[in-house]
Amino acid sequence: EEENLAVKPGGDRPISTILIVIAMQTEALPLVAKFELSEDLDRSAFPKGVPWVRYHGTYKGLDINLVWPGKDTILGETQEPSNCFCQVNGSNLAFEAQSVDSVGTVSASLLTYASIQALKPDLIINAGTAGGFQARGACIKDVYLVSDVAFHDRRIPIPVSIHATVVFDLYGIGTKRAFSTPYLVKELGLKVGKLSTGDSLDMCPQDESSIIANDATVKDMEGAAVAYVAGLFSIPAIFLKAVTDIVDGPKPTAEEFMENLIAVSAALHQAVTEVVDFISGKSLSDL
Amino acid sequence: EEENLAVKPGGDRPISTILIVIAMQTEALPLVAKFELSEDLDRSAFPKGVPWVRYHGTYKGLDINLVWPGKDTILGETQEPSNCFCQVNGSNLAFEAQSVDSVGTVSASLLTYASIQALKPDLIINAGTAGGFQARGACIKDVYLVSDVAFHDRRIPIPVSIHATVVFDLYGIGTKRAFSTPYLVKELGLKVGKLSTGDSLDMCPQDESSIIANDATVKDMEGAAVAYVAGLFSIPAIFLKAVTDIVDGPKPTAEEFMENLIAVSAALHQAVTEVVDFISGKSLSDL
Repeated sequence: EEENLAVKPGGDRPISTILIVIAMQTEALPLVAKFELSEDLDRSAFPKGVPWVRYHGTYKGLDINLVWPGKDTILGETQEPSNCFCQVNGSNLAFEAQSVDSVGTVSASLLTYASIQALKPDLIINAGTAGGFQARGACIKDVYLVSDVAFHDRRIPIPVSIHATVVFDLYGIGTKRAFSTPYLVKELGLKVGKLSTGDSLDMCPQDESSIIANDATVKDMEGAAVAYVAGLFSIPAIFLKAVTDIVDGPKPTAEEFMENLIAVSAALHQAVTEVVDFISGKSLSDL
Repeated sequence: EEENLAVKPGGDRPISTILIVIAMQTEALPLVAKFELSEDLDRSAFPKGVPWVRYHGTYKGLDINLVWPGKDTILGETQEPSNCFCQVNGSNLAFEAQSVDSVGTVSASLLTYASIQALKPDLIINAGTAGGFQARGACIKDVYLVSDVAFHDRRIPIPVSIHATVVFDLYGIGTKRAFSTPYLVKELGLKVGKLSTGDSLDMCPQDESSIIANDATVKDMEGAAVAYVAGLFSIPAIFLKAVTDIVDGPKPTAEEFMENLIAVSAALHQAVTEVVDFISGKSLSDL
């Protein structure tokens, strides 16, 4: 059974505070510029010690908070820097090798949790690049609005004894429905598909089986974790995922990434802007 | 490079507050009874909405907080209850099938984060059952004090371009050294080994390769996540893992579990008690 994220009271009042959760700096910075956000340099929203970064500001009447989990502090200290480009699950990345974005479900869940506690958002938008499956209709540069999320690397096939439903399996998969936004989908003409999340960039055969079972069109490394935490607090969450590489295609990921980086970044940036423009002045029930 | 968790100032003052992080109720309750802890029924340490449970009390001069991530609230509502026994990564479990413990790295990291913020512990003990590798010397009923932790299911083999160290790979593996406790090891005669953590109960070939690369003797579903969060805040963390099943042995997990459940639970309970007894009255540098 799936959980609906989330029909909470207050669906008719205008949306005020938006939390945008983004895993990587190179995905975040264009939106920081677009919305003219300021970095929270004293990190008042988060405790001392965490690498998480918050940008905030007002855009078209919305209080916008964009957070990303920052760079891994330990590796930042021990590695030699070097300039490089790379891709994480379709995420575009130009970075110094000494600075590693804190990608994945643990960082994303912690960051989402702390941001919800500090900022009490009305709506969460998790945006980023992703791998897409051409067998499910995904093309490079597509931006998907996600209908459902699930994990594909939490296999808990509990050997139960008698009379037992295999509920640990369901807990591990963690399927959740994204907040339903029929007007937004219609207005912006976004593709809609299911998202599967795992902590690995690559896809082992067991991952692939689970992704197929999850009926997923796009694959990332954070979405289902963001959804889990949003669900704990009944905060509506939506997910925008832009396809930078075709997982089930013939091209090597790195090559495909270099070809598509600029166009896909622009597509994601444009989609998030259009979504935020659409949200401005509306209530949850208008989405 | 590994991070040492953690040589913080104040290593010479007596340890006062201990946080015991346990993934499953059946692992937690015997210790709640032993230390005569009370459940924090108004859940003052945690925000509304989370299923996390805290037990607290004073034992031999120590302020003890035992936390576990509770039952998954969504599945608890949608499933028919039924009594069953099962095993998660060697974790013993007698439960009603409607109630699913929130196992795994996301819940463990969130719980550890929130507990650190609320309780400011001097030391974290992550205790639980685990799978053991007989090829590395593990036997049923062994209780390991963990020297190092790492993840085995976060494969991020980034295709980098030029001059780049593969630092995302290292971030994903997330190796951390546990807080060093040479006097404790000597006094209690515990076996010492490395722990590898992943979100799946089973072990796919890619997991196995990573576990071998991690040089691990025991395998669980939470340890490296607890270590990651403890490391963010430089809180010393130690890990006690009791072997309920042999991962690389011939016996089916469920069968082996039923044979060993009672003895292994008792061994874990005894080891945690001995560790807490040893800690009483000591400073971090005495461990």
